[in-house]
Amino acid sequence: MSTVESPVKLQAVDAPDQPDRTPQLEELYRGFESELLVPLWTEIGDLMPFSPVSNAVAHRWRWKHLVALAEQAGDLVPVGRGGERRAIALANPGLGGRPFATPTLWAAIQYLNPREDAPVHRHTQHAFRFVVEGEGVWTVVDGDPVGMRRGDFLPQAGWHWHGHHNLSTSPMAWIDGLDIPFARYVESTFFEFGPDEVESREAPEYSRAERLWAHPGLRPLTNVQPTPNSPLLAYRWEYTNRALDEQLALEDEGYTATIEPGHAAIRYVNPTTGGDVMRTLRAEFHRLARDTRTATRREAGSSVFQVFDGTGRITVGDTTWDVERGDLFVVPSWQPLTAETEDGIDLFRFSDAPILERLGMDRAEIEGNAQ
Amino acid sequence: MSTVESPVKLQAVDAPDQPDRTPQLEELYRGFESELLVPLWTEIGDLMPFSPVSNAVAHRWRWKHLVALAEQAGDLVPVGRGGERRAIALANPGLGGRPFATPTLWAAIQYLNPREDAPVHRHTQHAFRFVVEGEGVWTVVDGDPVGMRRGDFLPQAGWHWHGHHNLSTSPMAWIDGLDIPFARYVESTFFEFGPDEVESREAPEYSRAERLWAHPGLRPLTNVQPTPNSPLLAYRWEYTNRALDEQLALEDEGYTATIEPGHAAIRYVNPTTGGDVMRTLRAEFHRLARDTRTATRREAGSSVFQVFDGTGRITVGDTTWDVERGDLFVVPSWQPLTAETEDGIDLFRFSDAPILERLGMDRAEIEGNAQ
Amino acid sequence: MSTVESPVKLQAVDAPDQPDRTPQLEELYRGFESELLVPLWTEIGDLMPFSPVSNAVAHRWRWKHLVALAEQAGDLVPVGRGGERRAIALANPGLGGRPFATPTLWAAIQYLNPREDAPVHRHTQHAFRFVVEGEGVWTVVDGDPVGMRRGDFLPQAGWHWHGHHNLSTSPMAWIDGLDIPFARYVESTFFEFGPDEVESREAPEYSRAERLWAHPGLRPLTNVQPTPNSPLLAYRWEYTNRALDEQLALEDEGYTATIEPGHAAIRYVNPTTGGDVMRTLRAEFHRLARDTRTATRREAGSSVFQVFDGTGRITVGDTTWDVERGDLFVVPSWQPLTAETEDGIDLFRFSDAPILERLGMDRAEIEGNAQ
Amino acid sequence: MSTVESPVKLQAVDAPDQPDRTPQLEELYRGFESELLVPLWTEIGDLMPFSPVSNAVAHRWRWKHLVALAEQAGDLVPVGRGGERRAIALANPGLGGRPFATPTLWAAIQYLNPREDAPVHRHTQHAFRFVVEGEGVWTVVDGDPVGMRRGDFLPQAGWHWHGHHNLSTSPMAWIDGLDIPFARYVESTFFEFGPDEVESREAPEYSRAERLWAHPGLRPLTNVQPTPNSPLLAYRWEYTNRALDEQLALEDEGYTATIEPGHAAIRYVNPTTGGDVMRTLRAEFHRLARDTRTATRREAGSSVFQVFDGTGRITVGDTTWDVERGDLFVVPSWQPLTAETEDGIDLFRFSDAPILERLGMDRAEIEGNAQ
Repeated sequence: MSTVESPVKLQAVDAPDQPDRTPQLEELYRGFESELLVPLWTEIGDLMPFSPVSNAVAHRWRWKHLVALAEQAGDLVPVGRGGERRAIALANPGLGGRPFATPTLWAAIQYLNPREDAPVHRHTQHAFRFVVEGEGVWTVVDGDPVGMRRGDFLPQAGWHWHGHHNLSTSPMAWIDGLDIPFARYVESTFFEFGPDEVESREAPEYSRAERLWAHPGLRPLTNVQPTPNSPLLAYRWEYTNRALDEQLALEDEGYTATIEPGHAAIRYVNPTTGGDVMRTLRAEFHRLARDTRTATRREAGSSVFQVFDGTGRITVGDTTWDVERGDLFVVPSWQPLTAETEDGIDLFRFSDAPILERLGMDRAEIEGNAQ
Repeated sequence: MSTVESPVKLQAVDAPDQPDRTPQLEELYRGFESELLVPLWTEIGDLMPFSPVSNAVAHRWRWKHLVALAEQAGDLVPVGRGGERRAIALANPGLGGRPFATPTLWAAIQYLNPREDAPVHRHTQHAFRFVVEGEGVWTVVDGDPVGMRRGDFLPQAGWHWHGHHNLSTSPMAWIDGLDIPFARYVESTFFEFGPDEVESREAPEYSRAERLWAHPGLRPLTNVQPTPNSPLLAYRWEYTNRALDEQLALEDEGYTATIEPGHAAIRYVNPTTGGDVMRTLRAEFHRLARDTRTATRREAGSSVFQVFDGTGRITVGDTTWDVERGDLFVVPSWQPLTAETEDGIDLFRFSDAPILERLGMDRAEIEGNAQ
Repeated sequence: MSTVESPVKLQAVDAPDQPDRTPQLEELYRGFESELLVPLWTEIGDLMPFSPVSNAVAHRWRWKHLVALAEQAGDLVPVGRGGERRAIALANPGLGGRPFATPTLWAAIQYLNPREDAPVHRHTQHAFRFVVEGEGVWTVVDGDPVGMRRGDFLPQAGWHWHGHHNLSTSPMAWIDGLDIPFARYVESTFFEFGPDEVESREAPEYSRAERLWAHPGLRPLTNVQPTPNSPLLAYRWEYTNRALDEQLALEDEGYTATIEPGHAAIRYVNPTTGGDVMRTLRAEFHRLARDTRTATRREAGSSVFQVFDGTGRITVGDTTWDVERGDLFVVPSWQPLTAETEDGIDLFRFSDAPILERLGMDRAEIEGNAQ
Repeated sequence: MSTVESPVKLQAVDAPDQPDRTPQLEELYRGFESELLVPLWTEIGDLMPFSPVSNAVAHRWRWKHLVALAEQAGDLVPVGRGGERRAIALANPGLGGRPFATPTLWAAIQYLNPREDAPVHRHTQHAFRFVVEGEGVWTVVDGDPVGMRRGDFLPQAGWHWHGHHNLSTSPMAWIDGLDIPFARYVESTFFEFGPDEVESREAPEYSRAERLWAHPGLRPLTNVQPTPNSPLLAYRWEYTNRALDEQLALEDEGYTATIEPGHAAIRYVNPTTGGDVMRTLRAEFHRLARDTRTATRREAGSSVFQVFDGTGRITVGDTTWDVERGDLFVVPSWQPLTAETEDGIDLFRFSDAPILERLGMDRAEIEGNAQ
């Protein structure tokens, strides 16, 4: 979908003229209520606005506050069957206190003490982990141990068995992203318990999934049919970092490689299709070079960002924050976003874009121009 | 998705054991609250149930009550710019009084007096009309007048200009189905006003869209690329009726043509792809022969049915209703559905199945057996 | 592929300068020959021309001559196991006497006397029948009897059992189209004998395939997955004729419906995908109104046409023929085609376009302008 | 296509019984000839065999002989505009002396002396280079210099400008693979001359295409739409070698990673789709560990192999050869292939499989069992 609303329109079909509240009309409305009916003409402004009006609000969470609370939870709250994970979720202030970063997305800090296990389970919700600092935890996915280290992106497609365990002598915290709110909303959620402990205590540097799949442009002949979600269980920082460096270097040499001046970006993709890493979640990594300011862009659908490194200033709608390593912020649907930096900044991002794109509901604008 | 949950599991991860509410824990929870955080371990039972637990409830609306209220609205509420349509929506009792038949679907009765116009607009939401009785209204879609008659299914893909007008001397009521709740939820909704009156007062029996597209297996060479939504603006009753009759006749002759004994069914499809008529909405028509009882089936995702003709008895979960012409009922996600009839029954159905299927979230069971 | 060659280029890399034929070079060339090698530099003009140079030539076959010879064959040549069919194929004069209408396409007249059976077999080659006159033969496809009548297009996707039998008291002749030359060329051809007689002598007006599938925009719920070839076994003349009439009527009323003035056209499609009726063959029907002249168009890939009705004048490259009912002609790759008519003309066409399109090798020009 | 022919069938519908050659029949056949017609019943055995009968024959070419002849050509035949390339093609002995390795595939040794340029051109045929030994040549593709080194696979999708130049002080020879015979056959071939010299004399270790695309699972955001052919211009040996090593190591550790015991294999893929690197050509690399013997397998469609390293014994149908580094051999359609090795062997392979698969014409058997 690329057609664009006219910019001069009102922001919503606000308060259409209503018929006079005569006794007959009141009686009609009582009739509606008793028959479990609601008229369109009183609701249309909320239901069918001229352009998206998000329930969510732009908000930033400070990483240092999250880590401090997670550490306290590490002392007070055990990890085990039933509660399943020591995960603490962002609750968007516009969404009624529910643990939803945006209407569709879940984002949480997860925390594991040394030698702790988070028990094995599986669920239809898609998930990933992104590591902003630390190492020492392995996630065992269908028996394949996947080490987690700073900068790694670790997708976890739905309905695979997985548990975490911390093999190091330090606690470790990382970010979990899932489509929990969306799956809850469309009411298609399945869940099963697995063993209380992970199947393997091995701690290889690279998972078997990587050994089979992390070779650029090469596909094992054992598996030549596309799969809807990525079979690659770890996207290592060394590759992400190099890809972004190369884009900026190519730009310096005079070639088209970045999406705008000083702004390198990659998308994590499913190597069997070239498309999004999971069916409902998009994940990207953006790098702004020193003294870069992005264009202002807005999109239908919502995103969560985490600052991986550097510092910058983020503007979403009328709100501006300074951000630093680990800070998270959400961009609600159709809110304009601008990022700027003096020292350079690295940003991890995930969003619900695959949901909107697969259903033809995506739309975007750059500073008033359709894209 | 076809794997099946184990039938002996609990219906939800209900009330996992919680850590003791010590003063420190209370303080931690206050800390979460002040930082806009929510832990997983207190919420997991609601967020990640073993299988879908719908907020919506099964409910039936009586057509005669809907029509009576719509007639009163016809007397009291004008149709015009702002309110846009004299449409009265089903409000599922589980969904907090909002005009949502199910979490994703809107279903309303729309009513137009003789000589009335519903003004032209367009919106990104997908819509359709289904006519259980009456005729005389034409919908003008991008200038193409489409007559509406009993049994017709009239899709209205997003972002096309359309208005209605009643050319007859009788009022007319019909059913509107849309993806309004879903579009509102994912916050991708665009809307524009058009002229206050329809562009054409012509009243041809068949629209231009039908003259181009309603020829089985034939495609105009002017348009050989697939379009995501159907270019065919009317699916006439004569074809639907004949297709269902033929399925039952073939079954009588000993051939496989029905989906189970005595149960004929068609899906309305986009002739340019063979897939669902619109990207977010599925529409089907089911005919049960005399003395037929369907298998009990449940599906992730929700549906709305309208009785087109005949009578029967519908069971959804623990609820059973007798239904007759025009009655509407909703089937929430994962609720088992059985239909039975003595005299035969014709059922129109629409659902959010394309949303779930495109995202790999569909799942179904027949009487405890996976499908 | 839509980029266009520059029109001023030579027609072929003709006779590149060759190195002097010194004794050493002669010895080198003998060395190539003894090692089964051929240099590029002597062959490039033939192998890699600037634009397609077809081996096939434009040619017209007169229907009356074909029918006369087929009748004689009906007297002299029995139909039975081994020879399989009394089919007589067009042999393009540029293709060395082989029974190939074009490099990729087979086109033949098939002839069956009253009460004759053509035995049951199946093959991976895709086939169809098109009936320019007569009736009385039924093709039994996997047990489903399909009557053949003037104007009908009857696809026969690969690897389905089929036999023909003539139930009438008159002989019947029709056109068979297949991808035999292409399948032979890529060397993927499988064939099996079935029974010597058809499984059913029933003669219903409509096949079971039509009763299930010939309803515009409606799909039986028994079969909701796409199939690569059409499940619809007969595309009846009444629908084709009506679709073409409507296009010309819409054009008269001022709407876009034809591909150029006076030129209506439909493609026969697979209702489960909206795409070509079979994976290797495209089939279309074109109607030119009185006093119409088409634009001159050329395409990569080859076509065979049959005049269904009316008269006209066809120009292919430097050749022009008058044509009338039943006449067949071939259009080789990249040869410009123009058709004109005074009284109106109906043309059936089939081509290898799906092969080229699926491989990204299609290209077309209209009167020197790329399309 | 996976159904399998019955193994007891004859190899062809050989010599069906023919009607007696009476004078009338002779006259009929003369009538056919004069009207450019050929009957099916005399040709069916050749046209529609029970299973594929290839015109091509299995053959091996010795690398040392190819190199010797190429060196002589390097002395005697200049490279320049018109002849375009000093390429010497395999001419399958079954294909009438034409420079076709198989009916669909071209395979040639190309040879460039120090400081020589092969001029810039573009063509719709898809091509690749594979380097069995040497280095020092750069191919400049749309201005992007791509170094060629032992073990590298370098795809060259159709209609991109490209020239080669040798920057080293040694000659270099490599293998070119193209779909020339197929493109010639379907008669869709376009060709254009570019400059006589390459646009850039730069000699970077990695092309810009690699710097953008050779990062596993990462996609530049500048280019998020799929392209039908790979944007990655070099698949380096270090990655291929590592991928194969890992498969064999995983097999040793007890995991499924190889396609059969001791047999590792990868396919070169388009990172934007996960599918074949070019629309008409498949390329793979196979590694057999010491003392390995493959299953016997046959496939519809044809292949060309080159030994990259090691030694082995290849059996195709009734023919067996010993092979060593650089040797090439062809496997015609439906001929059974077995490879065995004592010391281990590395095999590069390319084939026309994408053509057959996209058209549903692929079929394979392993030792009499369908696959």
